[in-house]
Amino acid sequence: MQLSIKEIAKIINAQVFGDETFTINKVSSFEDADELSLTFASDLKFLKKLDKSRAGAVIVPINYEFPANKTILPNILRTENPKNNFFKILAIFNPGKNPNKSIAKNACIGANAEFGQDVSIYSNVYIGDNVKLGHRVVLMPNVFVGDDVTVGNDTVIKPNTTIMEKSEIGCSVLIHSGTVIGSDGFGFTQNSQVHEKIIHAGFVCIGDNVEIGACNTIDRGTFGKTWLKNGVKTDNLVHIAHNVIIDENALLTAQVGIAGSAKIGKNVIFAGKSGMSGHLSIGDNSIVGPCAGVLADVPPNEIVSGMPHMPHKLWLKISRIIPRLPELRKILFSLERRIEKIEKK
Amino acid sequence: MQLSIKEIAKIINAQVFGDETFTINKVSSFEDADELSLTFASDLKFLKKLDKSRAGAVIVPINYEFPANKTILPNILRTENPKNNFFKILAIFNPGKNPNKSIAKNACIGANAEFGQDVSIYSNVYIGDNVKLGHRVVLMPNVFVGDDVTVGNDTVIKPNTTIMEKSEIGCSVLIHSGTVIGSDGFGFTQNSQVHEKIIHAGFVCIGDNVEIGACNTIDRGTFGKTWLKNGVKTDNLVHIAHNVIIDENALLTAQVGIAGSAKIGKNVIFAGKSGMSGHLSIGDNSIVGPCAGVLADVPPNEIVSGMPHMPHKLWLKISRIIPRLPELRKILFSLERRIEKIEKK
Amino acid sequence: MQLSIKEIAKIINAQVFGDETFTINKVSSFEDADELSLTFASDLKFLKKLDKSRAGAVIVPINYEFPANKTILPNILRTENPKNNFFKILAIFNPGKNPNKSIAKNACIGANAEFGQDVSIYSNVYIGDNVKLGHRVVLMPNVFVGDDVTVGNDTVIKPNTTIMEKSEIGCSVLIHSGTVIGSDGFGFTQNSQVHEKIIHAGFVCIGDNVEIGACNTIDRGTFGKTWLKNGVKTDNLVHIAHNVIIDENALLTAQVGIAGSAKIGKNVIFAGKSGMSGHLSIGDNSIVGPCAGVLADVPPNEIVSGMPHMPHKLWLKISRIIPRLPELRKILFSLERRIEKIEKK
Repeated sequence: MQLSIKEIAKIINAQVFGDETFTINKVSSFEDADELSLTFASDLKFLKKLDKSRAGAVIVPINYEFPANKTILPNILRTENPKNNFFKILAIFNPGKNPNKSIAKNACIGANAEFGQDVSIYSNVYIGDNVKLGHRVVLMPNVFVGDDVTVGNDTVIKPNTTIMEKSEIGCSVLIHSGTVIGSDGFGFTQNSQVHEKIIHAGFVCIGDNVEIGACNTIDRGTFGKTWLKNGVKTDNLVHIAHNVIIDENALLTAQVGIAGSAKIGKNVIFAGKSGMSGHLSIGDNSIVGPCAGVLADVPPNEIVSGMPHMPHKLWLKISRIIPRLPELRKILFSLERRIEKIEKK
Repeated sequence: MQLSIKEIAKIINAQVFGDETFTINKVSSFEDADELSLTFASDLKFLKKLDKSRAGAVIVPINYEFPANKTILPNILRTENPKNNFFKILAIFNPGKNPNKSIAKNACIGANAEFGQDVSIYSNVYIGDNVKLGHRVVLMPNVFVGDDVTVGNDTVIKPNTTIMEKSEIGCSVLIHSGTVIGSDGFGFTQNSQVHEKIIHAGFVCIGDNVEIGACNTIDRGTFGKTWLKNGVKTDNLVHIAHNVIIDENALLTAQVGIAGSAKIGKNVIFAGKSGMSGHLSIGDNSIVGPCAGVLADVPPNEIVSGMPHMPHKLWLKISRIIPRLPELRKILFSLERRIEKIEKK
Repeated sequence: MQLSIKEIAKIINAQVFGDETFTINKVSSFEDADELSLTFASDLKFLKKLDKSRAGAVIVPINYEFPANKTILPNILRTENPKNNFFKILAIFNPGKNPNKSIAKNACIGANAEFGQDVSIYSNVYIGDNVKLGHRVVLMPNVFVGDDVTVGNDTVIKPNTTIMEKSEIGCSVLIHSGTVIGSDGFGFTQNSQVHEKIIHAGFVCIGDNVEIGACNTIDRGTFGKTWLKNGVKTDNLVHIAHNVIIDENALLTAQVGIAGSAKIGKNVIFAGKSGMSGHLSIGDNSIVGPCAGVLADVPPNEIVSGMPHMPHKLWLKISRIIPRLPELRKILFSLERRIEKIEKK
């Protein structure tokens, strides 16, 4: 595949500085770009190095000032939001394979199935009873879909994924392999020392435009639902317990764990390996640092770190003090001795 | 489905205060209950709000005193252990689907299989050689069962689960999807810088009434067994290394990791994201706090937190001091200056 | 199976002290060994207890001095590297089952497949288009292999594993169950509050002699590759993000998480539950302690612990000081009072 600078400029609405007839035939990172590559430079760190880039063409911000002398630079495309536009071209160069829009003969499909148009159901998929799939849904090999599940239009479920009964999956959702949706919550009643199983009668509800990473575990509600609202994205190996509610566009990075009945606000970000105790809430736009443990409610628009969590700025200060504790302790003991000396006078 | 208050009272051995002929047709949480719902209130927090509940009926503790005036309250069922009894009724309202008690035509079954009565083996299940399944065992779609595995009566294995060779699974065990039982332990011998594979000749043994969450990884012993005894429960994404022994009724919450050859006592609780180094032991009834790291033996009946772990009460104190370290450091330096001043006099 | 001491001595090149005709019929740990067992003792802790061992035979280091009186000891095999040689014999006693060297009828194989000799493809395996498998490759049941994947000679992929499109797997690799290779990286562009999906056009490259534990998630590069070089070993539930590069013979213990574009040197060890932020590098031979969080570059040959990480020795000191913070605070306040008293004089 190849595109001329002119064609690219048209797609991403860019101003060209250089040779419009020049063609590029691949899309690369700034470091790996060669004379056949398109790349992008959205911040100063890379813009400064433009004259050293061997790239065939570079997408830059709209406010980038063309220098008087072009000869030292690669071809330049000036546009709003270079990163987004770069990934738009990357997607054109990597169209992916079209799903086969057919139902494998060895797929096992239960009673009362209702499928939209152009669904793709691959080998060894198992679909329970009363399952509704929207248009263009793709179920890749070895996917399990339990009874009474609904899946919205344009949703793609990758191989070896498990969707247990009664789950409701929205439109344009992407679920990566190995993920389990609708496992039982971790809830028991105590009978002397024995833990008695609680029936988990609820379900998992996943909104539109949600992406769920590989090997996530999202438990069903005890009753009612565990709910990931529109636009939520989770990385790999994320655990979401029963009855958790995650509001729109929240991001959960890899290995995050959210305990039962927690409530997470809009646009909240949990960094890698962080977690949150049950029955707590965290307000809109708040951020939880890596490895942090949220053990109490967090208001909106906060940044917290540490375990237990505290304001991020405080945590930064403390992270600088802690390595100096041995020294501070020495000072403390030396002061003690000096005071003793003074007192003895 | 619906049940009258009278029918419910009979099932859970309750005293009724209200209209025995009233029928409920669903089971709800206290907050979500409406006039057709049964719910429960086991502690003061909810009992205080009984007069505000819109529930059709509420299960309360045996020592709850009926007020003089019933009119302001929903129908009341007074019983021992309201929570357990509530979940008993919830289970009646959510009977689940009966397994199909048949063997799918496309299941792949090895030599010398010995199956009990009424086993249910779903599509695409793979069963190796010399496998013994007890009565009423359920293997859901895409389950892999390796050679020489035994599974006890009434055990249910959810879809996309992997049981490697030689595993011994007890009776009434429930294993959630994505879990891997019997993977090799992480053990190598060093040959200059190269790590040479050690054969893991052992196996995994799982007792009766064990529940294992989704996407757990339980490694086989190097030799001998990795052993989860009767009544152990694990949440999702739990890692249990080779030759770990977990005694009866221990609880391992989500994302817990237990290193090789660790020994965990009866009724021990590991909170979310906590972990334990190898070759250590923790005594009966001890509790490990969230995100804690156990780096030395823990005696019975202790509560520990922190990384490295310490007594939980001490950790609570320290968690209050640490955010004040900047302030304490300032005091320390101001004392230093004051002492200098005194000394100069 | 049984082997005489003489036969074993020949295999592991050992000097015998005892009865060469004696036969052993199993291989056990030092503690579990009985009169029919071979075991080993490589360090003083066990060598001291040789006279108490009930083992039929014990492998000991080449520098072990035979005592004057053999009668109190089991049969002894003196050799270089007792542990390695012990596991060599263990492997002989546990040969494992030979793969079936056939292709299951119900395996689903795409167009343009190129398979080496003696491949074993089990039931319900799905293989996409343009897949190349080397000689003696084993794909166990329910494995998914996407389009354009290559797998080197003698590689074994355990059941229920997912290898997404374009992955390159080396020779003599072992991948445990539930693992997902080639899921999309966790990368989005921001469009107001909405996260827009970035195409992940790269792939995963895995070198020779790599072992990957159960339920790992290894994301493909955004462009270019995520790369595990020769001899890398990962334990269970490890997360490796897009474009991470892990150099030869590094070890990643269970539940480790490595963020995007991190670079890990040769022979580096990450202990359990540790992690590393993105775009950082850690030099050859460095070690990261359990639960540690690497938040800045680490030079070669360092040992670091804590979150954020610091030199391990410093962390040890601090771990001893932190539990004494309440006491130190008391001292601080008492000094303050004493100074006040002095000042008032």
